[in-house]
Amino acid sequence: MGRHTLEYPKTKTNTVRRKSDRATYALEAIHSLINASPLLNVAFNTPDSSPFPTILPMIGHMGSFDRPSADLGDPLDLYLHGYVSSRMMNLARSSSSSSSSPQGVEQQQQQQQQQQQQGLPVCISASHVDALILATSPFSHSYNYRSATLFGHASLVTDDAEKLYAMQLITDGVVPGRWRASRQPPSPAEMQSTSILRVSISSGSAKLRDGGVHDDKHDLEDEDAQGTVWTGVLPVFSRIGDPIPTSYNKVDTPVNITDFVRDYNRQNEEYVLAAAKK
Amino acid sequence: MGRHTLEYPKTKTNTVRRKSDRATYALEAIHSLINASPLLNVAFNTPDSSPFPTILPMIGHMGSFDRPSADLGDPLDLYLHGYVSSRMMNLARSSSSSSSSPQGVEQQQQQQQQQQQQGLPVCISASHVDALILATSPFSHSYNYRSATLFGHASLVTDDAEKLYAMQLITDGVVPGRWRASRQPPSPAEMQSTSILRVSISSGSAKLRDGGVHDDKHDLEDEDAQGTVWTGVLPVFSRIGDPIPTSYNKVDTPVNITDFVRDYNRQNEEYVLAAAKK
Repeated sequence: MGRHTLEYPKTKTNTVRRKSDRATYALEAIHSLINASPLLNVAFNTPDSSPFPTILPMIGHMGSFDRPSADLGDPLDLYLHGYVSSRMMNLARSSSSSSSSPQGVEQQQQQQQQQQQQGLPVCISASHVDALILATSPFSHSYNYRSATLFGHASLVTDDAEKLYAMQLITDGVVPGRWRASRQPPSPAEMQSTSILRVSISSGSAKLRDGGVHDDKHDLEDEDAQGTVWTGVLPVFSRIGDPIPTSYNKVDTPVNITDFVRDYNRQNEEYVLAAAKK
Repeated sequence: MGRHTLEYPKTKTNTVRRKSDRATYALEAIHSLINASPLLNVAFNTPDSSPFPTILPMIGHMGSFDRPSADLGDPLDLYLHGYVSSRMMNLARSSSSSSSSPQGVEQQQQQQQQQQQQGLPVCISASHVDALILATSPFSHSYNYRSATLFGHASLVTDDAEKLYAMQLITDGVVPGRWRASRQPPSPAEMQSTSILRVSISSGSAKLRDGGVHDDKHDLEDEDAQGTVWTGVLPVFSRIGDPIPTSYNKVDTPVNITDFVRDYNRQNEEYVLAAAKK
């Protein structure tokens, strides 16, 4: 409503070079794709002698502890779920450790900012394949897809209230309303055994392809090829099947789950079919 | 049949630390998961001052140019599809460049080996979400999933025969038989505009979870929780919808496509439902 659409600034790190007309830097588009992905790919470097970055599939969600009512187009942090003992948590812990000497509020704030910059540098990627595009020439084949990338610094969340906020955010990101619909409150042991990483986002980008087959002119005019090669789109979508209750479940399938399954299936299929016709 | 199952050696780089009972190092399991994934996440570091690794979604397939009849349990290379001008191709080119002075076959072989080690260090990840596991406590929630990771050095394929082999391999990896069913042969311009990376694999691992809900004993004995919380599995599977021909398509949907769509949908759903019941 008259508000500017916020975009991540284009830098050397996040600028899409190949087919840049398919790129967007809008926060809302990028954050939506991250939230719609059941798994995020998180890449980081380890301080050992390995030349390879490592990718871990993780569960996460965009949010703002300081302003929980922020919407998807606002600057947000990414919260990632993990285990206390995991390698990545240890790296994030060691790269954001600080002295515990007494200090004033201003110093604390400065230190917090430094910690965010000092966190573990990570790249996060989420992709959805929406269609296989089968063209006349194998070289004109493509996918319809939506893909988002974020760059930022990951730090361990140490504040209990922020940790609880993030746990609810991530659980409700899997199935809306699931946190309150499951056993509450968490036990102290549960709180201790789970770690949360907050990724302070530096930049990001998204890229998508929609539409149908784009054949080269000479292929369209090639009567022999057009008489023998099937061309078209194979739509691909993720579906959730009928809920399978445990043997000991005593509760009717709640409306938040039936609504979620129906919306998930309808929205995925509608998007994919509409994108194929663009 | 009496043959050993090959495994990637466990090193500091590829050893699964968290829930190691879910891990496998078997080549066949890892290579199958990579091939079943329509998109691969490829992470690499850039030589600029950025502290972040970068993840690109790419299309790829496992294969062996020297022994095309090799099966999935054999040592294989990963072939990745890209564009001549892309950043990653440039990095792989520069990190595997060699002198062009005349030399003997033995020297050439030595140099090829060195080039493979000198290629761009990459990590490749493929993941499939198979179910959302909704337990009594939010902290016992989980996913059924299959995830594979490979580490290796990426080099640009310069031999035309190997490039053609890889292009067919990757195209047929999207839809079996598609290479021959599409317009042939490639034009010189098509061959030149496409690049192929060969990743020489150093190590890898895979991890999976199957089965149903695993609730803690105290949650199972909590009558209040069991009377209010729905517990069970939401199976998730990727489906391909009805093929949508282009407006100018003149050909009946060929059997390789209808077979592919039927097999894809049947196999995905069967695996996911069987895994949920394990």
